[in-house]
Amino acid sequence: MEDREISQAVIGRLPRYFRYLGELKDQGIERVSSQELSDIMRVTASQIRQDLNNFGGFGQQGYGYNVVYLYDEIGKILGLHKEHNLIIVGAGHLGQALVNYMNFERRGFIFRGIFDIDERIQGTQIRGITVRPMEEMEAFVRGNDIDIAVLTIPKTGAVAVAEKLVSCGIKGFWNFAHVDLHVPDNIQVENVHLSDSLMKLSYNILSHA
Amino acid sequence: MEDREISQAVIGRLPRYFRYLGELKDQGIERVSSQELSDIMRVTASQIRQDLNNFGGFGQQGYGYNVVYLYDEIGKILGLHKEHNLIIVGAGHLGQALVNYMNFERRGFIFRGIFDIDERIQGTQIRGITVRPMEEMEAFVRGNDIDIAVLTIPKTGAVAVAEKLVSCGIKGFWNFAHVDLHVPDNIQVENVHLSDSLMKLSYNILSHA
Repeated sequence: MEDREISQAVIGRLPRYFRYLGELKDQGIERVSSQELSDIMRVTASQIRQDLNNFGGFGQQGYGYNVVYLYDEIGKILGLHKEHNLIIVGAGHLGQALVNYMNFERRGFIFRGIFDIDERIQGTQIRGITVRPMEEMEAFVRGNDIDIAVLTIPKTGAVAVAEKLVSCGIKGFWNFAHVDLHVPDNIQVENVHLSDSLMKLSYNILSHA
Repeated sequence: MEDREISQAVIGRLPRYFRYLGELKDQGIERVSSQELSDIMRVTASQIRQDLNNFGGFGQQGYGYNVVYLYDEIGKILGLHKEHNLIIVGAGHLGQALVNYMNFERRGFIFRGIFDIDERIQGTQIRGITVRPMEEMEAFVRGNDIDIAVLTIPKTGAVAVAEKLVSCGIKGFWNFAHVDLHVPDNIQVENVHLSDSLMKLSYNILSHA
């Protein structure tokens, strides 16, 4: 499987396939054609076939896709059969909201540690996880097989924190700080820039007014 | 200006230009060449010129871009010179985090109302805004010139709530519910599917392992 040749646009669509297949599975539907999937997902059947062909196809002429099989396979492609150990840096409102969201844990993303610079909240707990001082972050990452760091801190601190975490062997960042992280090529970054998203919505409202 | 011909990919990059130009402005830098902007933003100078040419250019041969002017113009293109009135549906952890995030308000996105189905939190306040019962939502939207609804509710309720809001004249959805909203073409939807983003990160970590 030549993963690196698969575009980020295709990768970005996989979770959506996974979501729709999960719903079909929950409804007890056993198989689905690319045309049926096309109708409910509102993308073309040819795009569905093209996207899935990147990973070897999965469909059978005249049968379509086996829902449970395709759901499981896409889950494996997305790495959801493995557990990820996460820390979150920044225990403000957004950090707390993410730690409290149970669905991530169901998918194998387990919050192991929470870190914050604010002494007043250090030692308190969020969903049973103690908020620790920043000074303990590096040893914790090294000692607990942490592979993903979630950054929910202001942009001023984010770059320096990211550099420290790279030196501790972190593999990926889920970055909510409003800054671009420049990390080595082998480190993955997924940005959630909320302000950018809201500005794009504003543009689209204005341009369709 | 033929807005509708401009791709969502270009629109999606505008907030990032806006952010970098804001930083240059804060540093007191008066002008910047597309090459300098290219170096700090890590995209090609030709992409920058192409993107900005969609809106009429703004640059001058041999001078580059005037930072404040370009910052202001991109802000106007993004509609940030106008105020948006928002309601948020769902006052759970994520909803609270968004209401408490001051930067949205600085950009003209003003939370006017908060609605939740949970009677126990109705009547409480988040940043001075009272949480109201769902039954009051439609009259509130009609009476307060609300143009954007933020959905931070579970996916089961989101589709029906969105339909109601469309009938009240809402112009756009900032949708955090893990479901696709199918709304008329003149209504804008900007999705923030957090689980999808985390799955994409998981894929990229796995495929670079």
